[in-house]
Amino acid sequence: MKLGTVERPEGPAAVVQSGAGEAAVLPYPNLDAVVLDGGWRAAAEEALRTGERLSSEELTWLPPVRRPGKILCVALNNSANPDRIMSGPDTPAMFTKPSSALLGHGRPIVVKDKYGRVHPEPELAVVIGAGGADIAVDDALGHVFGYTIINDLTAPAMRQHDTFHYRAVHPDPDDVNGVRYVESWVSYPARYKGADTFGPLGPWVATADEIPDPHALRITCTHDGRVVTDDNTANLRFSVAEVISFASEYLTLEPGDVIAMGTALKASAKGGAVQNVDLTALGGTIEVGIEGIGVLANPVEHR
Amino acid sequence: MKLGTVERPEGPAAVVQSGAGEAAVLPYPNLDAVVLDGGWRAAAEEALRTGERLSSEELTWLPPVRRPGKILCVALNNSANPDRIMSGPDTPAMFTKPSSALLGHGRPIVVKDKYGRVHPEPELAVVIGAGGADIAVDDALGHVFGYTIINDLTAPAMRQHDTFHYRAVHPDPDDVNGVRYVESWVSYPARYKGADTFGPLGPWVATADEIPDPHALRITCTHDGRVVTDDNTANLRFSVAEVISFASEYLTLEPGDVIAMGTALKASAKGGAVQNVDLTALGGTIEVGIEGIGVLANPVEHR
Repeated sequence: MKLGTVERPEGPAAVVQSGAGEAAVLPYPNLDAVVLDGGWRAAAEEALRTGERLSSEELTWLPPVRRPGKILCVALNNSANPDRIMSGPDTPAMFTKPSSALLGHGRPIVVKDKYGRVHPEPELAVVIGAGGADIAVDDALGHVFGYTIINDLTAPAMRQHDTFHYRAVHPDPDDVNGVRYVESWVSYPARYKGADTFGPLGPWVATADEIPDPHALRITCTHDGRVVTDDNTANLRFSVAEVISFASEYLTLEPGDVIAMGTALKASAKGGAVQNVDLTALGGTIEVGIEGIGVLANPVEHR
Repeated sequence: MKLGTVERPEGPAAVVQSGAGEAAVLPYPNLDAVVLDGGWRAAAEEALRTGERLSSEELTWLPPVRRPGKILCVALNNSANPDRIMSGPDTPAMFTKPSSALLGHGRPIVVKDKYGRVHPEPELAVVIGAGGADIAVDDALGHVFGYTIINDLTAPAMRQHDTFHYRAVHPDPDDVNGVRYVESWVSYPARYKGADTFGPLGPWVATADEIPDPHALRITCTHDGRVVTDDNTANLRFSVAEVISFASEYLTLEPGDVIAMGTALKASAKGGAVQNVDLTALGGTIEVGIEGIGVLANPVEHR
């Protein structure tokens, strides 16, 4: 099944895809509520038989999960350009995006001059069903409710602004005050990864049974119809199962949590790179498509 | 008033302090619900008159806000040790902690050998009442529901592990592919700042009217009774109003959001530093006290 969340005059509602461009209304306000209900599949089957239908014109999209406990994003997780990495991760490197950054399909990505450059990052996203801690790699895919699309928008000038060179305080038993200073770099992602509208998500969540292999999906990104990225989830360095397992050793996963698997960035045959598509300067519309899941499209609005 | 959230046999409940070590039960499951209800103050006054009382022994604490939309943390925001900063922030530098990291007063901070060193960071925290975007500095304190205490636990070895040296892709119109590489450092905080139990919060939220000046509060941190930090919120570099205003230009603030204002780190007269208190090695109990708000104490459990 493919599930989503839409805005209706009477309030938000979860929906299930019932045909091309058509959906049936589910008795839940959003997928946050669906994933918490063990009976959701029977309710969805009932909706497909007898539920109210919405045509494609009536589908005003919200992020499928509205207020996940966390949006965990894996960085530097693509093996397509290892030459860029001078010292890189040997375990999944992760940051979080706040739920206030989420944006529905079709809604405008808002950019402002003070953000500097803003580029898209097309990614496979996982929605967690059953939560857990210390999940084994072999059990990890059993915790996946479904797969969706995230555009992990990034503002590199804000990243640069929020990266600092400082002397970290380390304990040192030989020092009279017990400390020594170690030169370090640190960067803080709340603004450059978490600004409002920097997390377009959806429109559909394909339930886990629809995606037998999450590492065999073509993923493309286009800007105003021009192909920027043509990649495949086979190029992800750490797999969905490995990321779930590793993350859950540190951060308990909860139903509805979203995990963004890292940027698909293999350049299209015409060259270029997602980092080269500056939405602040260019405006236009960004589309991210993942085989078997759908297409997430958002226009850019310069404010 | 001072408000909190406790665990009861019949489920979680918000409470209001009704005397030394005593609280009255409010008709809300937590402060997440209180901040959303315009009528909370009348309900609290009614509870103080007629509500069920809990003695201090009955107060099993939960984080006052259970599932904030975001926990926004300001880094490097103390003017007490500018010598450490080689290139530092000229605007508030921020990261987010997931709500799964929150921990109630009295509950164990869990550390593991694989975390490496873990140190406390005693901080003033703000709970947002009315949300908003682009909030003016002069209006900002009107968005504060109350003030509480957060211990922003940090694992510097994980920070080092998740810091990378790489070549960022920048647009370059003069290049044949339109890009050039710029040597950069980046660090990802999900593990080192966001692991389970890395966010003790509470026990009490002092409502904004109780704290006329949030920048005149003594803040102390003790480890097993030894004073590690004796600082004052006067040393915060960016004020509560400045941080709320700046953050809201990028990330819409929502009711119940928590903002951690940055580490109080002025060393006590006996020297030392919070970074020198390695809870993984030392265990023990960490207490953070803020004048007018209370004391947040958590034992350390090594697993």
